Amino acid sequence: MVLMVSEEVRDAIATGRPVVALESTIIAHGLPRPRNLQVARELEAAVRREGAVPATIAVLDGTPRVGLDKEQLERVANEDGIRKLGHRDLPLAVAAGASGATTVSATALLAAHAGIRVFATGGLGGVHREWTVTQDESADLGLLARTRITVVCAGVKSILDVPATLQRLETLGVAVAGYGTDRFPGFYLSDSGHPVDWRLDTPEEVARVMRAQDALGGSESALIVANPVPEDEQLDPGVHARVLDEALRACEAAGVTGQGVTPFLLDHLVQHTDGASLEANLAAVRGNVGLAARVAAAWAAGA
Amino acid sequence: MVLMVSEEVRDAIATGRPVVALESTIIAHGLPRPRNLQVARELEAAVRREGAVPATIAVLDGTPRVGLDKEQLERVANEDGIRKLGHRDLPLAVAAGASGATTVSATALLAAHAGIRVFATGGLGGVHREWTVTQDESADLGLLARTRITVVCAGVKSILDVPATLQRLETLGVAVAGYGTDRFPGFYLSDSGHPVDWRLDTPEEVARVMRAQDALGGSESALIVANPVPEDEQLDPGVHARVLDEALRACEAAGVTGQGVTPFLLDHLVQHTDGASLEANLAAVRGNVGLAARVAAAWAAGA
Amino acid sequence: MVLMVSEEVRDAIATGRPVVALESTIIAHGLPRPRNLQVARELEAAVRREGAVPATIAVLDGTPRVGLDKEQLERVANEDGIRKLGHRDLPLAVAAGASGATTVSATALLAAHAGIRVFATGGLGGVHREWTVTQDESADLGLLARTRITVVCAGVKSILDVPATLQRLETLGVAVAGYGTDRFPGFYLSDSGHPVDWRLDTPEEVARVMRAQDALGGSESALIVANPVPEDEQLDPGVHARVLDEALRACEAAGVTGQGVTPFLLDHLVQHTDGASLEANLAAVRGNVGLAARVAAAWAAGA
Ligand SMILES: [Mn+2]
Ligand SMILES: [Mn+2]
Ligand SMILES: [Mn+2]
Repeated sequence: MVLMVSEEVRDAIATGRPVVALESTIIAHGLPRPRNLQVARELEAAVRREGAVPATIAVLDGTPRVGLDKEQLERVANEDGIRKLGHRDLPLAVAAGASGATTVSATALLAAHAGIRVFATGGLGGVHREWTVTQDESADLGLLARTRITVVCAGVKSILDVPATLQRLETLGVAVAGYGTDRFPGFYLSDSGHPVDWRLDTPEEVARVMRAQDALGGSESALIVANPVPEDEQLDPGVHARVLDEALRACEAAGVTGQGVTPFLLDHLVQHTDGASLEANLAAVRGNVGLAARVAAAWAAGA
Repeated sequence: MVLMVSEEVRDAIATGRPVVALESTIIAHGLPRPRNLQVARELEAAVRREGAVPATIAVLDGTPRVGLDKEQLERVANEDGIRKLGHRDLPLAVAAGASGATTVSATALLAAHAGIRVFATGGLGGVHREWTVTQDESADLGLLARTRITVVCAGVKSILDVPATLQRLETLGVAVAGYGTDRFPGFYLSDSGHPVDWRLDTPEEVARVMRAQDALGGSESALIVANPVPEDEQLDPGVHARVLDEALRACEAAGVTGQGVTPFLLDHLVQHTDGASLEANLAAVRGNVGLAARVAAAWAAGA
Repeated sequence: MVLMVSEEVRDAIATGRPVVALESTIIAHGLPRPRNLQVARELEAAVRREGAVPATIAVLDGTPRVGLDKEQLERVANEDGIRKLGHRDLPLAVAAGASGATTVSATALLAAHAGIRVFATGGLGGVHREWTVTQDESADLGLLARTRITVVCAGVKSILDVPATLQRLETLGVAVAGYGTDRFPGFYLSDSGHPVDWRLDTPEEVARVMRAQDALGGSESALIVANPVPEDEQLDPGVHARVLDEALRACEAAGVTGQGVTPFLLDHLVQHTDGASLEANLAAVRGNVGLAARVAAAWAAGA
């Protein structure tokens, strides 16, 4: 195994203490410097505050690392040329000795390899609005269909095709539950406008589903715990609707297509909400990290 | 393993006698009361008449059950609030202590876990006609791509996009053979209008393919045995074409979309054929159950 | 295991000498007689010239064979009624005692079963241009997402939807690298017009990625080494663009749809380029076979 697990994370796993995996794409590619490093540290501290061990995941110089030290975290935040690695990129990055931040798919895969069962992120990748032309769909969905991990997220970004993403999760057989809600969260918003079939209300209930997954056996699929941003920290729904609509029209008017669409829309949202979309994003991530730590604790307690 | 297998089914599996899995969605959600319980009993009796043991599958109070006793079968047929469970719902239902009928995907998964190799149903789920907008595709297809079971069915309901469903089965690598025909059956009709690449004519030929699957190894995919409703029991093709066309136009005119489409169309078919679509449906299921029992016998004989 | 591995191939695998799997669909269905047999022999000779053992794969009289003798190769080239077998067809062909040439998906599966890690072909199957109507997508892509093999190819045929195929490979998590290029090759052309994220420049670099795949563990996915046809042997890009455009319009005008589209377009390309598309095709295959042999040698050396 080429995977390097930090001593602290290894000890926690070996002794059955709660661990929460964290992805690094938000640090390297999702936030501006120097805020990105502050947030990375804040999220790790939030996990510790709940009594769990954070395991931020990235690839450095061709070594996939689970649990980063101070200097490694700084490299992810500040080094130029850090790539963005999905799960299919991992062997190529290892062979090339490359450094990269891990997306949800790569993080989930490496976390599961290391023996970590709970993972917190902002939003999952999903089906892109242009899918009927491009077939663009994140590798996150298929990877979660075959990886036994619990992902706490705030849904998927509203720049994606949310109902199509929900359909794909159903088609792929990935379990989805709302946390404290019967609605699928809308990332920036507490409610995407779409229902979910199952609701869980406590970390213990989540852990019970995880144990049922293992008891049932079968294919190693994930559990998505869809945790809404608190209503008082969400982006104003009226502002969201207006700015998203503007962003979609501006994108079309500018002739942006394919890989350029997502950064264009996200940038438009940040600019035209005076940063409020970024604050809602961070509120969502914070909530997810805290909940993931409590779920990891409930899981560790019952193991 | 949280799975409860009835004593009769467990004995049959242990002693190598033929067993046929049956799904429960048709009982709880596919037929009106009290006909649904009569049909459930009739199908079990038909399996027994061919010398095999029926294993109807459902989840009751959070326990997945393979093989239901008299009282359990009645609960599935008559209890209000019985949910409809796909394979991804199983751990959530177990953890919640919920009761539900199992779809093709959940039934196939639980049957395979219990060691049952042959499963009879009416029609598989498939790709919905609206898929270019909604991406709606049943989880049945993907689950069958990774579950080693033989499903005897009469094709897929004609309210779905049949050619797209056949394409998906090819893309996913699920083996499909016509039983006594070179045509893919049309559920209510003996012929959907589409060809199949392989034809099998006896239960022994089906069992031979099952043994070849195991001998070849590789991924644990299913075998779909597409068994047409007898021509003299099919829905009149002219009536079918006319009423289906009316139903699709009525659905559009009523503005029904998404999850509402399937019940709308099925209901329209039943109403506007004076129940003949229901009779053809039942004729198809009866034929499938009988064939599945003979396949299970051929499989058990050669094991 | 029903699989028959020739003595030469079995010995090579057992003693750790390089082996290259070759598909047989190009022989039986991709080239006219008698050129097809000449090419089949030429490709095997090219593998040997690089010090590796060729393992052409086909199914004869219900027996999947890895490594064909002189007479078996002649049967694949000259026998009428040789079927075309994808991976899902294998158990059906075995049970029926049928003979067939194997596509990329069936060849990759059988090669992996036999313990062969490197496979050379012309082009992969992919997403068809009509996919928004038909959902037509080759089973090659999904099979490669779960089979640990290295496929050396020249991209996918330009009659397919190349960008959608690249999206699917990303969604499915199949690793893709350009060989000596940052561009995805265009089968008849050295450059399809689309970039790839990773570039490998030597057989040793390819072998290093293969070892990283194994070291990382996780799902058994393939590595696609996309090797461009040499620029001086490619089809003239201007001719390619013109004739492909004509072919697509002729196909539409002739009302050809579904399964008829691919043979129509390929035939049109061969006819209207005076055979130059066939020569570019063969140049691409030759290059792939040679590279695959060198990759197999690098892999064997490091094992
Ligand atoms: Mn994408
Ligand atoms: Mn659906
Ligand atoms: Mn196809």
